[in-house]
Amino acid sequence: MANNVAIIGIGQTKFGELWDKSLRDLAVEAGLAAIKDAGIDKKQVDALYIGNMAGGHMVQQEHLASLLADNLGLTPIPSTRCEAACASGSLAARQAYLAIKAGEYDVALVLGVEKMTDVKGDSALLGLMGAGDHEWETMQGLTFAGLYALLARAHMEKFGTTREQLAAISVNNHKNGKNNPFAQFRNEISVKDVLEATMIADPLGVLDCSPITDGAAAIIIASEKFAKDMAKPAWIWESAQASDILALHDRLSLTEVRSMKEVGRKLFEKTSLKNSDIDLLEVHDCFSINELLALEDLGFCKKGSGGKFVEGGAIALNGEIPTNTQGGLKSIGHPVGASGIRQLADVARVLRGDAFNQMPSAKIGMTLNVGGIGGTAVGHILGKEPRK
Amino acid sequence: MANNVAIIGIGQTKFGELWDKSLRDLAVEAGLAAIKDAGIDKKQVDALYIGNMAGGHMVQQEHLASLLADNLGLTPIPSTRCEAACASGSLAARQAYLAIKAGEYDVALVLGVEKMTDVKGDSALLGLMGAGDHEWETMQGLTFAGLYALLARAHMEKFGTTREQLAAISVNNHKNGKNNPFAQFRNEISVKDVLEATMIADPLGVLDCSPITDGAAAIIIASEKFAKDMAKPAWIWESAQASDILALHDRLSLTEVRSMKEVGRKLFEKTSLKNSDIDLLEVHDCFSINELLALEDLGFCKKGSGGKFVEGGAIALNGEIPTNTQGGLKSIGHPVGASGIRQLADVARVLRGDAFNQMPSAKIGMTLNVGGIGGTAVGHILGKEPRK
Repeated sequence: MANNVAIIGIGQTKFGELWDKSLRDLAVEAGLAAIKDAGIDKKQVDALYIGNMAGGHMVQQEHLASLLADNLGLTPIPSTRCEAACASGSLAARQAYLAIKAGEYDVALVLGVEKMTDVKGDSALLGLMGAGDHEWETMQGLTFAGLYALLARAHMEKFGTTREQLAAISVNNHKNGKNNPFAQFRNEISVKDVLEATMIADPLGVLDCSPITDGAAAIIIASEKFAKDMAKPAWIWESAQASDILALHDRLSLTEVRSMKEVGRKLFEKTSLKNSDIDLLEVHDCFSINELLALEDLGFCKKGSGGKFVEGGAIALNGEIPTNTQGGLKSIGHPVGASGIRQLADVARVLRGDAFNQMPSAKIGMTLNVGGIGGTAVGHILGKEPRK
Repeated sequence: MANNVAIIGIGQTKFGELWDKSLRDLAVEAGLAAIKDAGIDKKQVDALYIGNMAGGHMVQQEHLASLLADNLGLTPIPSTRCEAACASGSLAARQAYLAIKAGEYDVALVLGVEKMTDVKGDSALLGLMGAGDHEWETMQGLTFAGLYALLARAHMEKFGTTREQLAAISVNNHKNGKNNPFAQFRNEISVKDVLEATMIADPLGVLDCSPITDGAAAIIIASEKFAKDMAKPAWIWESAQASDILALHDRLSLTEVRSMKEVGRKLFEKTSLKNSDIDLLEVHDCFSINELLALEDLGFCKKGSGGKFVEGGAIALNGEIPTNTQGGLKSIGHPVGASGIRQLADVARVLRGDAFNQMPSAKIGMTLNVGGIGGTAVGHILGKEPRK
């Protein structure tokens, strides 16, 4: 392979219901923070990549690439928006990574942003359903909580997974998010809280669901030539992407997600690493069941055993595979276009040593970001040192 | 430079008001046609890239990357949607090109699609305004015809450009589109027709404006390793992209578009070619004035002299720089996410010898695709032979 690529700067806004901040406010705040964190000058940024799902639907603004290059004072650099629902952020990061690999740029700012609260009427929920199959799912009344509830129910039926086991995932994420100043929810919760919470789509209660969130996250990525002189690089060892069938009714299986399996397979194959080499994992816990499916589909536990795995503490900070170590989507919040970037930022923070929950011995981390119910999956492996 | 990249297959639907075809129908038709034209098997396609602007707004469908990979039978390959308003198509092509350059894929299907008629209420017009600045332009009542009318008026005031000169552009495009079986409008028009047509936004009449169109266009692009055995490659010599300030009121000039100038400068610099080396040109004639601005900003004529240049026949098939040789956006139609791909396809058709208006001696062609009023510009130079 050609040149290595590194994350050399991180920026993030508070995640939450930010009624006094617009999409462009959030994007500019995170973007400038990443440039400052990298310690570079704006003039050194060769390209901008934007991850955003639903600016068009929620704030009637497409063409964010041009708008945000302008608002960040980066015009006339190339600026590109990528969209794959909730995987938009890491999809943008992957395109930037490939462009740097191709030798086209040395330094790219990758910025994920979503403005989801304080928008028109029911448009956040309806906007999110743009990630499903409009004709076969949305028009029939399905929501994303409903789709994931079907996956959860299938897993329970086939493998005996319980609501208590799913709850253990949300409990772990809230525990990890307690120290994260950017997190939307910093309160710890119990299994009992999760079980007694308002039911959204049986068997998923409100505490099985990540929230509706405003926020932005940004990273600066750079070629090895540029990154080697930087203060605190974290290295992108590999990137992988796959698709699955969009509409749930056409899937071959309801208990595994092909795109997630594919991404895991490719990442391990390309790096010659195995599951036990991964020191920390960021997965897409949009709903508790998806974190469980991801752990299984990436091979961290056997298919069907995810319930026992998470219940036994394997995903805790001191567990077998510490997962969503800074709080995950559930506690930090899920501004959909930003979450993939936020995952990469959180792994980079741990590797370079300034995370909110630090893991001093961690050397290799992995991310898995998902769009829809896995119609798109994008994953990365990051290392504390450059890949040999 | 790493490996060369070629266009090895082309597919396109009829462009027009296609009330009996959905977005997915159009995409599948063009995508499969491109695979068939390339003479390859679906299994040889490594990745899918989608150019689409407003699926979310117009047909409530985001996450087209997953949907169309599925509908084309390409799951689980990586699939990526790119959006930069009306430049979405060539933006997607550029990302695919860079990914192939990076060695990540050998073969990519790049598919541009837009469904704009038979959608809800006024949503085509409003959806298109997503390409402008929502807070500073859309909410003030501006439309794209209005924005381009301001550019046209400024050019007239500063350089004495006339409505007759602008009309010569639409006349040329309709003349060229006459033989194009995919074109929305195949009738010739006169300068008198343009001047007498319904006024949309003074000085632009309806025949200065490209239409609202349903349609899809696709190309297969491949690495040199793969393409060298193909029947009819056309070679991508170079790709360039730039941004400009989104909102018109913040621009430094109303008579030139910085992103278009940047793209032209980069393409000529990177290839060491000059304007006189270009045998044919595809530019973004969303409104007649933009074709004139593009000719000037790319350096085919001096700033301010575009009116005389087009009136004198320089853009005709037998002129100094044959432009929009198969009909352009005005005659072929403008399904916004597809137009950038359609431009690349039309230049490739000429170079490989199966265009609707053939130019047997043409060896080098250029495209310029624009989003909004030039907030994004993406251009390519294509050659009949691989770049040395």
